[in-house]
Amino acid sequence: MPQLGLLHGRAWTVFLGQLRRPPGAVCIRAVRSHSQVAEALFASQLKPQEKSNFIIKTPKGTRDLSPQQMVVREKILNVVVSCFKRHGAKGLDTPAFELKEILTEKYGEDSGLIYDLKDQGGELLSLRYDLTVPFARYLAMNKVKKMKRYHVGKVWRRESPTIVQGRYREFYQCDFDIAGQFDPMIPDAECLKIMCEILSELHLGDFLIKISWKDVRHEMVVKKGLAPEVADRIGDYVQCHGGISLVEQMFQDPRLSQNKQALEGLGDLKLLFEYLTVFGVAEKVSFDLSLARGLDYYTGVIYEAVLLQTPVHAEEEPLNVGSVAAGGRYDGLVGMFDPRGHKVPCVGLSIGVERIFSIVEQRMKTFGEKIRTTETQVFVATPQKNFLQERLKLIAELWDAGIKAELMYKNNPKLLPQLQYCENMGIPLVVIIGEQELKEGVIKLRSVPSREEVAIKRENLVAEVQKRLSES
Amino acid sequence: MPQLGLLHGRAWTVFLGQLRRPPGAVCIRAVRSHSQVAEALFASQLKPQEKSNFIIKTPKGTRDLSPQQMVVREKILNVVVSCFKRHGAKGLDTPAFELKEILTEKYGEDSGLIYDLKDQGGELLSLRYDLTVPFARYLAMNKVKKMKRYHVGKVWRRESPTIVQGRYREFYQCDFDIAGQFDPMIPDAECLKIMCEILSELHLGDFLIKISWKDVRHEMVVKKGLAPEVADRIGDYVQCHGGISLVEQMFQDPRLSQNKQALEGLGDLKLLFEYLTVFGVAEKVSFDLSLARGLDYYTGVIYEAVLLQTPVHAEEEPLNVGSVAAGGRYDGLVGMFDPRGHKVPCVGLSIGVERIFSIVEQRMKTFGEKIRTTETQVFVATPQKNFLQERLKLIAELWDAGIKAELMYKNNPKLLPQLQYCENMGIPLVVIIGEQELKEGVIKLRSVPSREEVAIKRENLVAEVQKRLSES
Repeated sequence: MPQLGLLHGRAWTVFLGQLRRPPGAVCIRAVRSHSQVAEALFASQLKPQEKSNFIIKTPKGTRDLSPQQMVVREKILNVVVSCFKRHGAKGLDTPAFELKEILTEKYGEDSGLIYDLKDQGGELLSLRYDLTVPFARYLAMNKVKKMKRYHVGKVWRRESPTIVQGRYREFYQCDFDIAGQFDPMIPDAECLKIMCEILSELHLGDFLIKISWKDVRHEMVVKKGLAPEVADRIGDYVQCHGGISLVEQMFQDPRLSQNKQALEGLGDLKLLFEYLTVFGVAEKVSFDLSLARGLDYYTGVIYEAVLLQTPVHAEEEPLNVGSVAAGGRYDGLVGMFDPRGHKVPCVGLSIGVERIFSIVEQRMKTFGEKIRTTETQVFVATPQKNFLQERLKLIAELWDAGIKAELMYKNNPKLLPQLQYCENMGIPLVVIIGEQELKEGVIKLRSVPSREEVAIKRENLVAEVQKRLSES
Repeated sequence: MPQLGLLHGRAWTVFLGQLRRPPGAVCIRAVRSHSQVAEALFASQLKPQEKSNFIIKTPKGTRDLSPQQMVVREKILNVVVSCFKRHGAKGLDTPAFELKEILTEKYGEDSGLIYDLKDQGGELLSLRYDLTVPFARYLAMNKVKKMKRYHVGKVWRRESPTIVQGRYREFYQCDFDIAGQFDPMIPDAECLKIMCEILSELHLGDFLIKISWKDVRHEMVVKKGLAPEVADRIGDYVQCHGGISLVEQMFQDPRLSQNKQALEGLGDLKLLFEYLTVFGVAEKVSFDLSLARGLDYYTGVIYEAVLLQTPVHAEEEPLNVGSVAAGGRYDGLVGMFDPRGHKVPCVGLSIGVERIFSIVEQRMKTFGEKIRTTETQVFVATPQKNFLQERLKLIAELWDAGIKAELMYKNNPKLLPQLQYCENMGIPLVVIIGEQELKEGVIKLRSVPSREEVAIKRENLVAEVQKRLSES
């Protein structure tokens, strides 16, 4: 609201300022928000304002997403969610916080990284640390035995933020999980197929999905009771990498093939690689035995996708981002929530979208790619004074036809700044009305890139604009 | 993973279980999530598990969104965001929590409803209470003078949840705001136009946007110094409702028209109604003087949209939801964050999407409308055994062509359950492969609604499916 004169502004406030509280009615949250803010600030203006000397910033490890970053994020999330939907997943959302006891004892040594809410007299709450535990809680709570769901949402972790590497305390996760008892390896293979589809569609360059496993010997001998000499035999293969040929090799080893447990395990792995071959993605997947580890356990295969060469292009700064997606099988989690411990086997994946944002943003910066922050198709302009009403009428026609349009919030803008705005914002088309056009009953359509202008009949505004937009 | 036999499962675990921690590499958040969960649960399985007697639920005032609710929400948010984009707004996102001091003293008596985070040794934080204060913080922090932005996100308030009326402690807000100094009433009129467009597109029935104001007399006489007798004259009109005709009436009142302040205020209001008339929405807006109030202040007009008749249809249970959108002008907020108090005038609106979710959900329940929870277009089926590989091959072709497809995670499913699944899930098309089809080099396309089947050439699978899907 302009300050045309002090009295004007005050009179305006006099006649129009108000805070409405409908007596006894259901409270209007939105207007309460705006109006309470106004109320509070007015009240604070009445007393001497103590300006505390704090810096205005976002909390440590968090950030605003600028309009440009929002466009990049939206594009990436659209690719991810489209793929999830292509594979028949249902959407799900859970609250940002859970009962503290739900999250307790689920994250091992990282439990100290959970954000707790203050005890304000009610339930003890914590911000969700991932989307997997809430999913397991949902399944147990609703006694769901089979579900294929995706979930895109923020999670929070009080880690040491490393901004360069794209690590924040608040970040998005994109999870796809299949819960339920099914025939072996089909859901697992589909998860790997999904990871391949998403990473290909995001054009991040060459990638590899590593399937790796733990310290076989310790697991087999100490936990599963496999004969030590058989374990040793498998250990010989630990130095190898490979795909289905490695598995074949292991099958042919006489000591392994005579061991029933070994055979069955190898059989499932062979099955997985067969399905991956049929899916056309086997060459993207590597069975990486060298990644065996110490005392940690899992209930099934874990996989992780890494980019093979960053940067994709030689001129780019190399970006060390580690993995961009990962997942695996976790058959025991839902049972932790069930009073009788009934298990619901699960397999899933998580797309590391924050890493992918970093990579895509970095790439766009390197190549000077310009990102439009609005989707505006048409700008309504005038070269003369006193044409506001005509501009408002024109723009309402465009909006009512679903066309994305803007105009300058000025009564009498000059033409050049209006055209300059279009160039800056990447708006492709201008609709110009002025005295001459009004007299002739036409509108000028001006192409911003080519600067060519053509006159069209006033009554054909929407049709002509739609035609022009569909041609480009 | 099936329990084909206890040994089988264990062998599988032996060969494939692992937790990978790449030495020194950037930590893989996603796999850590899955694997830490696995690690922790395995560790807890080793010791006797104490099942605490807590009920598995979401926190008070929060809820999961089921797949059906997600579909409804997605549809509604798409309408809202499309409208915001149509009007040239840029997207913005802010963190879920702010520094506590940012939110302090902005919400008046509702400050006690803010969720604080526990003091865990770092900054003191609170969950954001709305999207308006974060916006003002963003503007001040980045020294932005003009911006048109939309923001869709969750906010949190520790209110008494009233589930019937759709009030939760965690809920979505959809805000559109225009910040900046502009010529009078143009942005304000656009906000009202946006509210009308959204409410119309959501087909919620008849609605009215009330523009109301405070206790004029108190404001004018005590705060603005208007002569008491002029204030009394305006008071005479307080009982009236109306649109532009009421404003005209007030203009013609000799005592008002001779008062400079009164004239200026009425002038802006008249301007607003003129613009609303050009926009074609004036009949949806009512200037409601009877809603004057006591000591609360605002810097400009506040408006609120109410549905005129709920239920829209006579058979529905009446649903008392109050307002469905609201907004107004708040010129002093950004200045609270600026050390020198520089003001950035703002006007905006908030769509009450939670209320709208409730209404739409209620309506769908009343009318028994079925909502598909997946977008799957094609199901790949077989009537015979040993056709898994063929099904996997077919479905991969469909996925690679961007077609949304599913199959049963069974080696040898029976045909009837597969067809039943399609009927239950609303999947329109089935692709059937069996011995006969394999021999003849064809695929059967079966329409789920009509049950008609037609044979197509195997090599034309994708083209034929795409053709069939585009026809429906």
